[in-house]
Amino acid sequence: MSQFSSISDVLSEKITVGKTITVRGWVRTRRDSKAGLSFLAVYDGSCFDPIQAIVNNDIENYQQEVLKLTAGCSVEVTGTVVESPAKGQAVELHATQVKVVGWVEDPDTYPMAAKRHSMEYLREVAHLRPRTNLIGAVTRVRHCLAQAIHRFFHEEGFYWVATPLITASDTEGAGEMFRISTLDLENLPRTEKGEIDFNEDFFGKEAFLTVSGQLNAETYACALSKVYTFGPTFRAENSNTTRHLAEFWMVEPEVAFANLADNAALAERMLKYVFNAVLTERADDLQFFAKHIDKSVIERLESFVNSDFAQIDYTDAIDVLLKSGKKFEFAVEWGIDLSSEHERYLAEEHFKSPVVVKNYPKDIKAFYMRLNDDGKTVAAMDVLAPGIGEIIGGSQREDRLEILDARMAEMGLNPEDYWWYRDLRKYGSVPHSGFGLGFERLIVYVTGLQNIRDVIPFPRAPRNANF
Amino acid sequence: MSQFSSISDVLSEKITVGKTITVRGWVRTRRDSKAGLSFLAVYDGSCFDPIQAIVNNDIENYQQEVLKLTAGCSVEVTGTVVESPAKGQAVELHATQVKVVGWVEDPDTYPMAAKRHSMEYLREVAHLRPRTNLIGAVTRVRHCLAQAIHRFFHEEGFYWVATPLITASDTEGAGEMFRISTLDLENLPRTEKGEIDFNEDFFGKEAFLTVSGQLNAETYACALSKVYTFGPTFRAENSNTTRHLAEFWMVEPEVAFANLADNAALAERMLKYVFNAVLTERADDLQFFAKHIDKSVIERLESFVNSDFAQIDYTDAIDVLLKSGKKFEFAVEWGIDLSSEHERYLAEEHFKSPVVVKNYPKDIKAFYMRLNDDGKTVAAMDVLAPGIGEIIGGSQREDRLEILDARMAEMGLNPEDYWWYRDLRKYGSVPHSGFGLGFERLIVYVTGLQNIRDVIPFPRAPRNANF
Repeated sequence: MSQFSSISDVLSEKITVGKTITVRGWVRTRRDSKAGLSFLAVYDGSCFDPIQAIVNNDIENYQQEVLKLTAGCSVEVTGTVVESPAKGQAVELHATQVKVVGWVEDPDTYPMAAKRHSMEYLREVAHLRPRTNLIGAVTRVRHCLAQAIHRFFHEEGFYWVATPLITASDTEGAGEMFRISTLDLENLPRTEKGEIDFNEDFFGKEAFLTVSGQLNAETYACALSKVYTFGPTFRAENSNTTRHLAEFWMVEPEVAFANLADNAALAERMLKYVFNAVLTERADDLQFFAKHIDKSVIERLESFVNSDFAQIDYTDAIDVLLKSGKKFEFAVEWGIDLSSEHERYLAEEHFKSPVVVKNYPKDIKAFYMRLNDDGKTVAAMDVLAPGIGEIIGGSQREDRLEILDARMAEMGLNPEDYWWYRDLRKYGSVPHSGFGLGFERLIVYVTGLQNIRDVIPFPRAPRNANF
Repeated sequence: MSQFSSISDVLSEKITVGKTITVRGWVRTRRDSKAGLSFLAVYDGSCFDPIQAIVNNDIENYQQEVLKLTAGCSVEVTGTVVESPAKGQAVELHATQVKVVGWVEDPDTYPMAAKRHSMEYLREVAHLRPRTNLIGAVTRVRHCLAQAIHRFFHEEGFYWVATPLITASDTEGAGEMFRISTLDLENLPRTEKGEIDFNEDFFGKEAFLTVSGQLNAETYACALSKVYTFGPTFRAENSNTTRHLAEFWMVEPEVAFANLADNAALAERMLKYVFNAVLTERADDLQFFAKHIDKSVIERLESFVNSDFAQIDYTDAIDVLLKSGKKFEFAVEWGIDLSSEHERYLAEEHFKSPVVVKNYPKDIKAFYMRLNDDGKTVAAMDVLAPGIGEIIGGSQREDRLEILDARMAEMGLNPEDYWWYRDLRKYGSVPHSGFGLGFERLIVYVTGLQNIRDVIPFPRAPRNANF
């Protein structure tokens, strides 16, 4: 009896030449020779390349079935593994049996017919696009990066913490948050004053989808020292761009006893670790991106892992930009938030390497970032990468209660809303730091794809929650 | 200069005796001897046990600070690693310096004072409860199980797929789903007919939080062969029980070309893999659960990994229950859904091992489960475990379009709502199977805890979205 084998195992020569095996998958292409042979390219998603199965016309169902196979048909092919004379593949399969599992209804209208499709079209058939070379490669790279992230933090002694998605805290302004409710919109309950009575809602108060797990993660870092989140996050921003999603995945490590320098070092180690993983484990898919999407992707990752990160204070970065002689669209002066053109100038032209910009003006940063001794800046950091700009944003957190309270007052926040966050500063407070990495931004960087909607299976964006 | 070490590294003797190191963490207890020594138990969350630091009264801040340390204070302790004469620990630290990082404001009212707290109380201080032995152990076990799940699937050639949380599909009846919206509740837009105009909402239509990633995962399995999801899922059920959460994490593998037997075998391999991981990697935390929560936890896991799963058809299981001579609260007859008492009888008393019950009546199962040749049952399976009952539910999926359509018609579903799901059966359809594992149920099983709210950092339940 033959065994079922993944095409990845066959092509990576884990299966001995001469062995009889069965592969199961879908037909990518069929080509017939005049000599009475058919060549089937069969993929199963386990690796980039399909296997080539050579089918002789003497097999039973050759005329009836094999010659009718089209792209997308599902098959089980049994045959002998042989060394391949063709270049680009080590082995191929001499088929002794081709079992058709599922036909394609009307091949002429099969939405995934073997031709080049536009990215826009592929988004409209997001349920079928994983069958393309492109989205197959994205899926494997995405998996590889996710695994590498979990493995990196595990090896560094971090614990994964699931912070809540549903929240009644409004950390960054409810305007950008999605409301969650089970109230009947046609019969909204009202209080005696005539206001909507959220006491009747599922959670007994207004609830939203979270924009960050950070504040919750801090509570765990202040007990287990090193934790990270890796989960979905939401933004109700009505921006239809190639860089924004309404639902995306974030990685947020949080480390007790870590200062901003430790934080920057952690970000550097993490990025290099995951890029090394994808270079090693998904060379096949990266070659596809280099060939069809952006020819610099492999080189860019290799150069990234071999670079030493530059570090610069925000104040010095402003000087660099002012002295650059460049015309920027957004004028440079101390106090501005750096925009993409500034970030890319620093990483791509000035340092020619990833760079950590540190110690930003407090007025453009969140209340929880640690105030520096100058009273003007906070211990924030952004990691800027050549080719994309900001890839990570983080900070040392304010661990001194009285300064935290003063910052909250300055920003008009109500300390009572943050009672539990303040508790961390009352009881055994420690310096601690963390950062956030948008997982889809990372995949955009690795693959060279231009639109973030192509690196997540079913993108959510304004007017788009299909599938 | 000394190095910073994790307490886990010190206690597992990765650090040589005689070396000078610094640990950073929080005081669990302080005990003073008449001889003028203090014993500090310091934890950093890296493992279950604290390290014991012996502080001589000749260090500089002994009177001023060390003698004032209380539970929860954060410290940096530098000292020499020495073999410990005390039992239960291999090494201890002879402190040469104790640096107080953060005091506890008013130790008498510190919510986590070193005493036994009720589980109910701990839920009210969910931001501080990770500081307890109990929730620390839960967090490490939870992490270990999550890592093992990712590792298992990776080693088996699966790809992780992020299925969407926000959905416009209502797969199991909107009654149990949370609505997501950015509409202004005080000014709901109306159509000309006077209905609420969801065209004005963020996604241009009604949107909800998903109850399962399965249907989406199937689209990827029908292209990449083996995929799994591991992400949050939601239920708006108004049930305040110890077994339900409004927000919880699910693991959902989906495998092309797999039948129900393959599915059951996968579930068995996965559960044994993750239980072996936790037995090996978190022996310290399991010992705590065995001592304080449920003395059978370790034995139960060991017995699980050494058992062969029993398998039985639903129809035969009904016979077993009818012939058992047991009085059940819910009467047994063919056609009922098994309740917890039935499931536990089968696993605990009849088979005395985990058991897979297969081929349930179609009328109690979902439309997407594959109809068996008898026309009465579907290829569904539940894995029942001694001590908990159902831990996994899954099925082979209906891969035949005409039968799927007939089942949907039977259940009053509109095929147009499932156009993309039906496409998978039009284009290279393959037999495929998968299952769902509630991650928090798994942790309840491993830890022996009674309430599911204690195994997730910030539980969400009716009237509860605190923190």
